[in-house]
Formats: sequence, C-alpha cells, structure tokens
Amino acid sequence: MSRGLLLVVSGPSGAGKGTICRAMLEHRPSIRLSVSATTRKPREGEVEGLSYFFLSEDTFRGMIDRKEFIEWACFCGNYYGTPRATVEEQLAAGHDVILEIDVQGAMQVKSKFPEAVFVFVLPPSYEELEKRIVGRGTESPEVIHERLETAKREYTHIEKYNYILLNDYIDGAVERFSAIIDAEKLRTERNAETIHTILESK
Amino acid sequence: MSRGLLLVVSGPSGAGKGTICRAMLEHRPSIRLSVSATTRKPREGEVEGLSYFFLSEDTFRGMIDRKEFIEWACFCGNYYGTPRATVEEQLAAGHDVILEIDVQGAMQVKSKFPEAVFVFVLPPSYEELEKRIVGRGTESPEVIHERLETAKREYTHIEKYNYILLNDYIDGAVERFSAIIDAEKLRTERNAETIHTILESK
Repeated sequence: MSRGLLLVVSGPSGAGKGTICRAMLEHRPSIRLSVSATTRKPREGEVEGLSYFFLSEDTFRGMIDRKEFIEWACFCGNYYGTPRATVEEQLAAGHDVILEIDVQGAMQVKSKFPEAVFVFVLPPSYEELEKRIVGRGTESPEVIHERLETAKREYTHIEKYNYILLNDYIDGAVERFSAIIDAEKLRTERNAETIHTILESK
Repeated sequence: MSRGLLLVVSGPSGAGKGTICRAMLEHRPSIRLSVSATTRKPREGEVEGLSYFFLSEDTFRGMIDRKEFIEWACFCGNYYGTPRATVEEQLAAGHDVILEIDVQGAMQVKSKFPEAVFVFVLPPSYEELEKRIVGRGTESPEVIHERLETAKREYTHIEKYNYILLNDYIDGAVERFSAIIDAEKLRTERNAETIHTILESK
C-alpha cells in the first residue's frame, strides 16, 4: 500500500473550491476530505466530525502547544486548524487527502509537508468571481467587499502553488484535478521504491 | 494558441517506448513525433522524412556547426540527431512534441529546454525486459548482452527524469502518459499568461 497524496486546495471564496472538492469524492472514492477543528460554535445543521470538530478553546490551545495541528489560524476571535493525526492516518492507509484551506494555512503546510501538492482554484475571471459572491445573496456588501479584497491579496501567492485549476465548468475542473493526481503519483521522487524493486530484480 | 509541450521519452530498449509513443498519436491527435536525422543509409522500407531524415555526413556536420540540433550523437560511425527547426515550429503551432531519445540525448535537451517534460519508461521488471529483448528473435547474443548492459547504465539516470511510466500494459501506460500531459499543462509556471489575464480582468 503506497502512501496517499496530500492535496492542498486554495483559491478565492467564490472560485468553487468546495464544489470541486466534494465532486472529487465521488469521482475518486479513495479520496478523503480533511475535517477542520474550530472553537466557533456549531451553526444550524452542522455536524460534529463532519462539518468540523468543535473544540473548546482550552482543548484547541493545548493541541497548538503539542504541535498537533498541520496548520492553524485565528479569525474573528475563533480558532481554526487541521489536526495532524487523522490526516497522517489516512495518508498512511493510502488515501489521498484534500485540505481546503487559505493561502496562509497552505504555506504552513508547505513548510511541514514539502511533498504535498498545491492547487490554486481560479474563477474564469474576476467579474465572474464578483458575480458568484454577489449571486449567493447571503452576504452583506461589507462581506462581499472584504471577500473580493482577500481574493486580490491571495492571488499574489499563486506562484507558490504547483497547479492552477481554472473552474470554468465543474466537470472539466474535476477531470483536470484527477489528471493532476494521476500524474503526481508517477513523479520520479515519489517512486523510489518501484524503481528500487525493478533495479533489484536484475 | 498556447505553445505545446516538449516531451522527452527515454528508457531501455525493450521497455516499449516506441509502442507507447505511436499509441499516443492515436490517443491525442495533436501530438507530433519528432523525426530524427541520420547519416546512416536507409534500410529496406524506411521512408525519408518519416523514419528519418537521411543526410550526408557533410550536411549533418554543417548543421552541428550551425547548432541546428537539439541533441546529437555518433553511434557506430553514424550520426543521429534531432533537428531543432521542425520541433520549434510544431511547438509554436501548439502541438505537443515527443522526442524518443536515449539518456545522453535527453540530458542535452534538458540543458537547452529546461521546461521540457522528461518521462522514463520502465518495463515491469528486468526479467521482463530480458524476455522482450530476447523474444524479438532478431538480435544476436552479443547485441542482447549489450542492450541489457546499456539498460543497467541508463537506469542510473532515472532520477533526472520527472516521471516514471511503468509499461505493464500498453493501454494503462497510454492513459497515464496522457494524464502527465494534462497535468503539466496546468502547472503554475506554464500559466503565467492565464493568471495575468484573470488578474487584469479585475
């Protein structure tokens, strides 16, 4: 059983990261989505262990101290983070694990897992992004403005990602993401063992 | 029209490079196979411009002097090389171009086209390789021995290639090669223009 790939997916809110990641679960059943931990209170309909792991601030801080997060951050007074243990277990079991996180989180992952694959999801255009964020109809003008500003800021980190995934239409994006996973598994540096086995067979 | 990918394919004789490359032509019609130039005499059935460009030694040496080869070498008194002009034209026209060349040639290409994609084709095992080379029934024991020795030598350069393509069965190898091409086209460093266009649209 070879170790799974750690796939880090970022991109501006409204680019469609969540939709792509959920579609990948159906497209490649061996994929797992990492579940984040948070100290924020559960919202209506959110399920413990599925939406998030809901933790107390004490528990969360204890985990930070014990370095049990791959990445973590504090937004608006709430902590969010990716617990290392589950991710490690799933990778070891041969599952490819997707972390859907922001650019700052992704850079923390990069320093700890340099072998991870970094994918930046882009909307077809900035206008399209604006349309998608406004179109949700759930956000206030301030939040919309904030999201668009964040998007601009995140774009400046694109070159730290390995791949650009243009979300022009979902099926195409899922196919392309799948090709990225197939190709990454063939990279020479991930196949030392296969090469060794074949060389040993002579 | 975006520039095509330069795909360099190497691997021991008997690994099935040629079969994979020809199958890729049918699988992805935009692919072109590079035709080598040589000073060796045409064999029965070989076609000028399809099998090789058959050149005189004077012509070949003149092209070496004018740096008109991407890579070249001399084997058993005959010159072999990849003319730069055709490859450049096809890449510029958006075709992905496959060069099926040996490790030494590949390293020459790498120094001139660092953006090229390097794929090393492996047989499932060394025994399988031996079986395939012997199985052809066209080679003398000396040639077989020589090929197997060369294979061992070439293996030591595997880590200079980006991808390992295990030729366990042809359809699988072709699918995987195709995923490599799809994924490489999404690499951030190849998409500066797309990113620029999207950033400019804001």
